[in-house]
Amino acid sequence: MTGSIKLFSGRANLALAQEIADRLGIGLCGVDIIDFPNENIFVRLHQSVRGQDAYIIQPTYPQVNRSIMELLIMIDTLKRASAGQITVVVPYYAYGRTDKKDQPRVPITARLVADMITTAGADRVVTIDLHAGQIQGFFNIPADELTAFHLLCDYLKEKDLSNAVISTADLGFAKKARNYAEALDLPLTFVEKRRSGRKGSTTESLTVIGDVEDKDCIIVEDEIATGGTVVSAADILKQHGARSVYIAFTHPVLAGQATERLAEAGVTELITTNTIQIPPEKHIPNLTVLSVAGLLSEVIRRIHYGISVGELFGE
Amino acid sequence: MTGSIKLFSGRANLALAQEIADRLGIGLCGVDIIDFPNENIFVRLHQSVRGQDAYIIQPTYPQVNRSIMELLIMIDTLKRASAGQITVVVPYYAYGRTDKKDQPRVPITARLVADMITTAGADRVVTIDLHAGQIQGFFNIPADELTAFHLLCDYLKEKDLSNAVISTADLGFAKKARNYAEALDLPLTFVEKRRSGRKGSTTESLTVIGDVEDKDCIIVEDEIATGGTVVSAADILKQHGARSVYIAFTHPVLAGQATERLAEAGVTELITTNTIQIPPEKHIPNLTVLSVAGLLSEVIRRIHYGISVGELFGE
Amino acid sequence: MTGSIKLFSGRANLALAQEIADRLGIGLCGVDIIDFPNENIFVRLHQSVRGQDAYIIQPTYPQVNRSIMELLIMIDTLKRASAGQITVVVPYYAYGRTDKKDQPRVPITARLVADMITTAGADRVVTIDLHAGQIQGFFNIPADELTAFHLLCDYLKEKDLSNAVISTADLGFAKKARNYAEALDLPLTFVEKRRSGRKGSTTESLTVIGDVEDKDCIIVEDEIATGGTVVSAADILKQHGARSVYIAFTHPVLAGQATERLAEAGVTELITTNTIQIPPEKHIPNLTVLSVAGLLSEVIRRIHYGISVGELFGE
Amino acid sequence: MTGSIKLFSGRANLALAQEIADRLGIGLCGVDIIDFPNENIFVRLHQSVRGQDAYIIQPTYPQVNRSIMELLIMIDTLKRASAGQITVVVPYYAYGRTDKKDQPRVPITARLVADMITTAGADRVVTIDLHAGQIQGFFNIPADELTAFHLLCDYLKEKDLSNAVISTADLGFAKKARNYAEALDLPLTFVEKRRSGRKGSTTESLTVIGDVEDKDCIIVEDEIATGGTVVSAADILKQHGARSVYIAFTHPVLAGQATERLAEAGVTELITTNTIQIPPEKHIPNLTVLSVAGLLSEVIRRIHYGISVGELFGE
Amino acid sequence: MTGSIKLFSGRANLALAQEIADRLGIGLCGVDIIDFPNENIFVRLHQSVRGQDAYIIQPTYPQVNRSIMELLIMIDTLKRASAGQITVVVPYYAYGRTDKKDQPRVPITARLVADMITTAGADRVVTIDLHAGQIQGFFNIPADELTAFHLLCDYLKEKDLSNAVISTADLGFAKKARNYAEALDLPLTFVEKRRSGRKGSTTESLTVIGDVEDKDCIIVEDEIATGGTVVSAADILKQHGARSVYIAFTHPVLAGQATERLAEAGVTELITTNTIQIPPEKHIPNLTVLSVAGLLSEVIRRIHYGISVGELFGE
Amino acid sequence: MTGSIKLFSGRANLALAQEIADRLGIGLCGVDIIDFPNENIFVRLHQSVRGQDAYIIQPTYPQVNRSIMELLIMIDTLKRASAGQITVVVPYYAYGRTDKKDQPRVPITARLVADMITTAGADRVVTIDLHAGQIQGFFNIPADELTAFHLLCDYLKEKDLSNAVISTADLGFAKKARNYAEALDLPLTFVEKRRSGRKGSTTESLTVIGDVEDKDCIIVEDEIATGGTVVSAADILKQHGARSVYIAFTHPVLAGQATERLAEAGVTELITTNTIQIPPEKHIPNLTVLSVAGLLSEVIRRIHYGISVGELFGE
Repeated sequence: MTGSIKLFSGRANLALAQEIADRLGIGLCGVDIIDFPNENIFVRLHQSVRGQDAYIIQPTYPQVNRSIMELLIMIDTLKRASAGQITVVVPYYAYGRTDKKDQPRVPITARLVADMITTAGADRVVTIDLHAGQIQGFFNIPADELTAFHLLCDYLKEKDLSNAVISTADLGFAKKARNYAEALDLPLTFVEKRRSGRKGSTTESLTVIGDVEDKDCIIVEDEIATGGTVVSAADILKQHGARSVYIAFTHPVLAGQATERLAEAGVTELITTNTIQIPPEKHIPNLTVLSVAGLLSEVIRRIHYGISVGELFGE
Repeated sequence: MTGSIKLFSGRANLALAQEIADRLGIGLCGVDIIDFPNENIFVRLHQSVRGQDAYIIQPTYPQVNRSIMELLIMIDTLKRASAGQITVVVPYYAYGRTDKKDQPRVPITARLVADMITTAGADRVVTIDLHAGQIQGFFNIPADELTAFHLLCDYLKEKDLSNAVISTADLGFAKKARNYAEALDLPLTFVEKRRSGRKGSTTESLTVIGDVEDKDCIIVEDEIATGGTVVSAADILKQHGARSVYIAFTHPVLAGQATERLAEAGVTELITTNTIQIPPEKHIPNLTVLSVAGLLSEVIRRIHYGISVGELFGE
Repeated sequence: MTGSIKLFSGRANLALAQEIADRLGIGLCGVDIIDFPNENIFVRLHQSVRGQDAYIIQPTYPQVNRSIMELLIMIDTLKRASAGQITVVVPYYAYGRTDKKDQPRVPITARLVADMITTAGADRVVTIDLHAGQIQGFFNIPADELTAFHLLCDYLKEKDLSNAVISTADLGFAKKARNYAEALDLPLTFVEKRRSGRKGSTTESLTVIGDVEDKDCIIVEDEIATGGTVVSAADILKQHGARSVYIAFTHPVLAGQATERLAEAGVTELITTNTIQIPPEKHIPNLTVLSVAGLLSEVIRRIHYGISVGELFGE
Repeated sequence: MTGSIKLFSGRANLALAQEIADRLGIGLCGVDIIDFPNENIFVRLHQSVRGQDAYIIQPTYPQVNRSIMELLIMIDTLKRASAGQITVVVPYYAYGRTDKKDQPRVPITARLVADMITTAGADRVVTIDLHAGQIQGFFNIPADELTAFHLLCDYLKEKDLSNAVISTADLGFAKKARNYAEALDLPLTFVEKRRSGRKGSTTESLTVIGDVEDKDCIIVEDEIATGGTVVSAADILKQHGARSVYIAFTHPVLAGQATERLAEAGVTELITTNTIQIPPEKHIPNLTVLSVAGLLSEVIRRIHYGISVGELFGE
Repeated sequence: MTGSIKLFSGRANLALAQEIADRLGIGLCGVDIIDFPNENIFVRLHQSVRGQDAYIIQPTYPQVNRSIMELLIMIDTLKRASAGQITVVVPYYAYGRTDKKDQPRVPITARLVADMITTAGADRVVTIDLHAGQIQGFFNIPADELTAFHLLCDYLKEKDLSNAVISTADLGFAKKARNYAEALDLPLTFVEKRRSGRKGSTTESLTVIGDVEDKDCIIVEDEIATGGTVVSAADILKQHGARSVYIAFTHPVLAGQATERLAEAGVTELITTNTIQIPPEKHIPNLTVLSVAGLLSEVIRRIHYGISVGELFGE
Repeated sequence: MTGSIKLFSGRANLALAQEIADRLGIGLCGVDIIDFPNENIFVRLHQSVRGQDAYIIQPTYPQVNRSIMELLIMIDTLKRASAGQITVVVPYYAYGRTDKKDQPRVPITARLVADMITTAGADRVVTIDLHAGQIQGFFNIPADELTAFHLLCDYLKEKDLSNAVISTADLGFAKKARNYAEALDLPLTFVEKRRSGRKGSTTESLTVIGDVEDKDCIIVEDEIATGGTVVSAADILKQHGARSVYIAFTHPVLAGQATERLAEAGVTELITTNTIQIPPEKHIPNLTVLSVAGLLSEVIRRIHYGISVGELFGE
């Protein structure tokens, strides 16, 4: 820790950054972030940060590639301005799904981005609900992965869960779905997507594993992009007798027609967070947005003053 | 590719290395690997490798830490002896389960080992069925993750699967279990392990998700260490009416009393591979060991001559 | 050199890449470059490149940040696919103007991008007319900076230059303008832009240094972005009696309303190259576009076969 | 900032270092720098620097290569003695002219030296008037480039400039010359050096661009090495009617017969600084030496106490 | 220095670590170090170390490879837990004898281990009596090599040395043996081991260089592994008339049958230290063990509070 | 190996480089190495080396710091000119005596220079008789340390050694002296230098260990710098009855008045090599210079064609 907290925000989620600043009782540090006519992003800090610890809030969505470059340029600027420790807070880490080669001749972009952040000069990364926890290990600088799990569970606990089950449509999320089920003391079920047929004429079919008849199904996911998968899952669950469907997820990517699709899916409630800024036109009525600002501001405070972050979660 | 294949083996699985050499129609390169009285491992190559591509076969089990250090020392020796490209073949990658911080203040040893291998001087890594595919991204050198999936599937396909289901007791393996189910065209089921109660007096209970009554259950896993989980899973599956249980898994870690436990578990057949050398006393009667030597020798050949490895798998 | 030339193109200037391929008598290597709905770029090579030297054509304009990320992801893909040497051909290097801190607390993005390219795994960079030659030194991998100077000079030499002078409106380009003047044996003049007045109410004024009366003025620049500066320069040159104005420049950034502005500027001819793809709507009548494909294809051929590139220029 | 300022000096400009120490009100830290009979430089610190921030004053001229090695060895010594942050103050950065490949098969030594300084263990670099500002980007550690521009301008402003013009004989310095012209509100002119003829029989001719008749010409440059160029420029300016010539430049390299040549050149006044130590025999009568000690001591103080350096210049 | 000293111990010499903690008046920090059934070492810190300087005590003997991996995993854990500076205290540095290639095609494992420690994330190393001082240079982080020389000398000075000579059986230790001789003001002698004969039938013979007749011989060494060499040396010294033999050495490796061999060697006293933990069964009657805890605790205190370590030794 | 051997020489020992070229039957590659008036060294290769393996001959003596910088600049030039593998042949490695911290607050310059060579871009180092073999481990690129031992032994074997003994005045050289004694089957003796008295009034005294009366003493060393030590040693050996003294050493540093001192020392013969160029005025009559050109040319040939270097020495 050196000096007071110097909090900066990129342009990807200024509202969240401001909320964090408010909770910390400080102002956001002044910075010009300019798009030149030739599309080059230019950054200029208003004040000296010499020897002072800096924190940058920047989810890498929307405008994924611009947001990443903007983050890197901000890091470079702070480094060359002789900042102390530079902590990068990425509430949503894009490219997380490109985290391994599950076919030949593809990239591992999640590692590439980690290397970019490290090479640019970051000293520490804070993020929320990575697509895979292993992405922490793509960094060799300390990476604190936080979670919206407690936030979402606490919200769900206030509902009548006497007849509910947890479900997930992403088998890669099975273990985390189990954690929800365990924390809420609910049964666990799955929607399995399977391809069949030969190359060229494959069909996808959905199967429900476990009993959902007359149940309130809570689908849990890390993020919703196009919404295609969860909308189909909600549909098949209802076909199998589910009496209602909720969807709880951390990251509202909500790409393309996702909101429209979800609005028409007959889902009782969509519960998410503000790791990504949701534009007004996507605020459909049954969408509940919980704020991660409390979590992030407390973590920044603890990092800055050298207080345990783990204890925040009773660990 | 430079010169002919120079194939070396550490001491962790000499039988596999020899089988690979035989299939390649070459001999293993001579190397002294000595344990000095002060426990220091010493390595000396018999022949010059100047400018020639070298391949080292060394799973990092058993004797995990010694096997890792031995591998690193071999890499250092080859590097300082001016070898060309150094390809490290690690059929079983230990410490794979320590691949993320799922609680505060723990290591990510799988990344640490990747860094050690890279720093020592390896140019490429070949491995089989990592605990998590993301470990590929812990490397910045090319990492080819192969799989025993096809080998195990082909073996299982020769059985009568008319009444079988796929099961897994590790929810982190759910997605790969689905791949088995898809390839064998079988239903998918789960054994869920859940902790309940408060800290200090937690109890673990097992639940079966999906229908297993009168079914032949094929439990699939990446590795079996103590066997505790799969033995309990086999038990609960039978309690739920399974008429037989098979277990298919890539890596026979078989630590401690695993073999005894499995022998008494009433499992029809255990199907695994020789990524790890299984000592004679652990060769229980119902254990089938498929060889990965064919796979590894073909991959080494393709790497050496610049032929696509991906095409091996029809990709 | 290993194997034949494997030529890839990003999406920034496919026409140029195809022209280079044609001149080399080869086809572009197949690669899928996909924008996922969540904006993530995904890359997949059609064929194995194991052990083969690869070349990527990608100017980092337009869509600067997307083009950079796309380039980096392509490099990562090739590296992890075990390509031999990876040569990155960046005909136009964006962010070149952010090459030093000429005020406090700003980035040096041109270095940042160089580090990104290197960290991603490139082995060599080829580029054309950097904003500052020193950017070569931002790389520690070999960087071949080519120039469109000869191409532009040769074109200009075919005109009647008996009454011409060279001019530049960018004093940072003075030395290169002198090279044009020397090569064409013409006098050198300058348009100086100067700010005067106090902060808050500065005015910019233009001065012509040297004699342009009744001359054909050839303004030379490395790139034209908004066109603001050159249009003003053309104007002041005419006010000082220039009888015609030509503009020769390497990189047609042509941002925003640049084309419209230039079309109305009373310039006789604009001479540029295809380092950046010019969309049809910007092809104004007096715009001449020379192709750098011949230069780049020859340089790629020489790199691949280990032939001197310097000798191409009689050096 | 840790502890008090530990100020060290190499042997290249002890007088400047002492002056900086005096202005900071501290003493230079004791250090033995010995040339062994075998020419090896040996360094030994008198006192512990454990955990304390250290600053080394060392222009890399004269005795360029020895001065560079001496600097590197001092950095290594401080690093291995567990110093805190190591700031290297290089008032004159040699090899700055070798900053790009402007012909094939030459080095970029300015980058090489930057890498040497970084690899040796420096945490920050402070320098004055680099040959090209882009050299800042050769470093990935923070590099503060200061300038003697204000010092020289302030001195010139006290003269009668009513009839003066700014001139430069180095077109690479044109932009900075414009800055002088702007700050002093004077017209800008150039002396252009041009080679003509074929290889083997080239002749160099000088041209004056802009009007100098009856003017007091102030030639501005970053450094004067042999003096050949400025002496010729002074001559041609006079031939074009200049009534007097002044030369203002930051770095008094003054190599070989430079002083003699300048003394005979009919220049009214030479104004420079003490970034490089000028031996007594080179102190010709019309040479004015301004001290950068005030600037450097203030910058060191600000770095040490985490105060903005940028604000020093009203930025 | 940040916060109080956080002192950790691996499992290699817990007694020494506890003694150091006691002398510092602090407790050892809580840490779980677990061997999983699959041999994987797992580490978990009990308390947060965020921003606090940590010190790890871990000689890399016994169980050399396990001890090294355990040390690396502890470093990784501390790094990822955002510790401040991490100082690694390795009282005995294994693999020190593999410090150069004295034959072709062998490793330099001492450098490899240094790289592993650095890559894992250590900021500083403290060690005692390296096999070769040059191993300090295998690190690029500060490495403080301490010595038990003063401890051993002080102990020896309390004996009657009126008739003593210093001897060594390791010519690589000749210079350090001279230091003992100088400090104790005693003559210096050597036992030279020489191989003769051809390959395949070499014989080793011992020669005494210098006069030992009727002398009390003090053999000095850095470590004793199998004891073979010193036992032979003691024997030949007696054959040459030595009236008694003492052996003083820093590191009690005492591998295999070393203790038995030494117990029967007719040596008056063996004087060593506790850099390595000596198991009870190896505490033969004439073995004196001096503690390095005072030295190490004082050095840790000085490192932590930024006090000179060198002055500890009157340097 | 790529293409033919491209052999370059710095300016430190052009005669040796030419001799090596002659033995390889090739010419030295053309390169301009220029000292600019501002002392900057500039390098320009005459021919393209694109993709071709290059070898640089440059001992780093005399003019130690200039020779090192020249070597680094040559490496940078070759790297940026896209050479294949760059092998640096440093027959004499200066700064070898600064290879550890044997007192606080001093550098380890031998490591620093190794890092400089590596950072500049060398792929392999070849050197002869390092001051300490451990310096090999200062490199992480392959480092082949050759020796003039066989050359010197072969020369000595042709003399009448019936009455000879080996001696050394540097106890750090004791082990290598033993190797000479063993190879020549001669007894081993020492000249011990010891300081006594308190600080401020220490006196040095020499002692002979072993019997030299009526013997022909062959003093062996790695290098002779000022000659002070060996001249004193020769003197004390004669005082102890030696009937003649020879001195055999690899590196003729011969600094300052070394030659004069040696000429007057009553030494029968000085035998050395040409790793360092000996200027004519230092060729005293009893100086025999053996050439290492045969050794180096053969090693370069073997490296280039991938043939074992170790086998050269029957290993």
